[in-house]
Amino acid sequence: VDGALITIINGAPSDYISVNDRGLQYGDGVFETMLYQYGRVSLLALHLARLNTGLSTLKIELPLDCVADGLAELTQSLVFQNIKRAVVKLIVTRGSSARGYSPRYAKSPSVIFSAYPAAQHVEYARSGMDVTLCSTTVSHQAALAGIKHLNRLENVIARAEWNDEFHEGLMCSSAGNIIEGTMSNVFFVDDNKLLTPLIDRYGVAGVVRRCVIDVLAPQLGIEVKETDIPAQNLHFANSGFLTNTVIGIVPIRRLQGRTLVMPPIIEHLQHALDVYREKT
Amino acid sequence: VDGALITIINGAPSDYISVNDRGLQYGDGVFETMLYQYGRVSLLALHLARLNTGLSTLKIELPLDCVADGLAELTQSLVFQNIKRAVVKLIVTRGSSARGYSPRYAKSPSVIFSAYPAAQHVEYARSGMDVTLCSTTVSHQAALAGIKHLNRLENVIARAEWNDEFHEGLMCSSAGNIIEGTMSNVFFVDDNKLLTPLIDRYGVAGVVRRCVIDVLAPQLGIEVKETDIPAQNLHFANSGFLTNTVIGIVPIRRLQGRTLVMPPIIEHLQHALDVYREKT
Repeated sequence: VDGALITIINGAPSDYISVNDRGLQYGDGVFETMLYQYGRVSLLALHLARLNTGLSTLKIELPLDCVADGLAELTQSLVFQNIKRAVVKLIVTRGSSARGYSPRYAKSPSVIFSAYPAAQHVEYARSGMDVTLCSTTVSHQAALAGIKHLNRLENVIARAEWNDEFHEGLMCSSAGNIIEGTMSNVFFVDDNKLLTPLIDRYGVAGVVRRCVIDVLAPQLGIEVKETDIPAQNLHFANSGFLTNTVIGIVPIRRLQGRTLVMPPIIEHLQHALDVYREKT
Repeated sequence: VDGALITIINGAPSDYISVNDRGLQYGDGVFETMLYQYGRVSLLALHLARLNTGLSTLKIELPLDCVADGLAELTQSLVFQNIKRAVVKLIVTRGSSARGYSPRYAKSPSVIFSAYPAAQHVEYARSGMDVTLCSTTVSHQAALAGIKHLNRLENVIARAEWNDEFHEGLMCSSAGNIIEGTMSNVFFVDDNKLLTPLIDRYGVAGVVRRCVIDVLAPQLGIEVKETDIPAQNLHFANSGFLTNTVIGIVPIRRLQGRTLVMPPIIEHLQHALDVYREKT
């Protein structure tokens, strides 16, 4: 089967949720996709910080120990089943309510932890990914920018633009600026400087993106600039990489059919991320 | 309890769906909210037409008899339980798949019919609704415009802007044009002419909106113009109404604190809708 290896809903093993859950009805919730390895969830503090930002944006009140309890339960199952490496997805919805958009009477959030098989992505880290440009745009919605909410139809439609010809596709704003990949953030390398799209009005504030900007690049003395990057600039890009929690930092091998260089700076960042992950 | 009276999932009574369902994971699906009365679902053909538009936009392949079977099952339960009037919500999701945005391997859509208690809305039809203007905007997403998909977080956030002070709130595009209410479409009355927002790039193509434009207004010799309506024009609106399947046609009594007139033309349209509904 294709589904989760283990699912824990509100602290107990279960694979089903109520159809009245607002997660299904409206996409009224947030999620985190995390990597479990070495007996723990990597970059957990950063994931929980983003989760909290999302919950407070949506005004979903969740006692933090609900998350801690669910995670403990899931980790125990992973250890028990001798699973060393897994993708852990946490979904928090506003829970069930009467019909209607008003969130006022939904008082009991659903906390859903699922563990999925984690492929080894070392291959991509070395060989890089083939990247296309999607025609599906990322919506302008300042009220939701940055948070990893459950309204992901744009990503689904963008991802449906190709099958196996590419590994990832970049998405633009309707103004024509690169925002992110369907499942990753993107950086371009310009000599010893990194450029990455501003995501103040669009997109998802990726956890590894945050790491690169706040921790890894400064460690290596690399300047990072968050800026508008028009799609037509892609033609002049020499080098770049994608980031997400599961794949880590992955060089762009080909961009819209053009071969990019994969300079040592990307390998240095990958190494710095590995070291950082062992500590956090 | 607040939930559905009856739920039929893929032809069988059940209240639960798999957490792997892409409806929960990504909001990857569409829905219809319909009114059941006089032993049948009102305006069914129009609802199914919009459903099909949504399904083909999202490239979800669904044998039409799945819908017919589920509806037959639900109707039977309503008759059996002696429920004369209900709101029927149909959700069709792409079903379950492996983790990841790609819709390619999801082959088995979920068809979820739920019946909810239907309040009598006759009161609003006479007394009208108090309407505010929301600060939450409707996203520009041409790929999804018009269809009633499951990504409804904007509606939730907009609806959370007020509690009981108003009955409905209008939402604008980021360009500042009125698009729709959080749960309704909107028309303004200008002498013997109706104005309603264009929804080619934004919003939901309401079934009653369709009826008014294609059937009811022509019947009554009323001209309808679909056009851009800047939010600042609200200050000059004398009269208007909201439409959705459950409330029907409801006059706007107060708009941003200002009392509007409720001209006879609205009552004529209400009557025409009642007559049309008895036939279709």
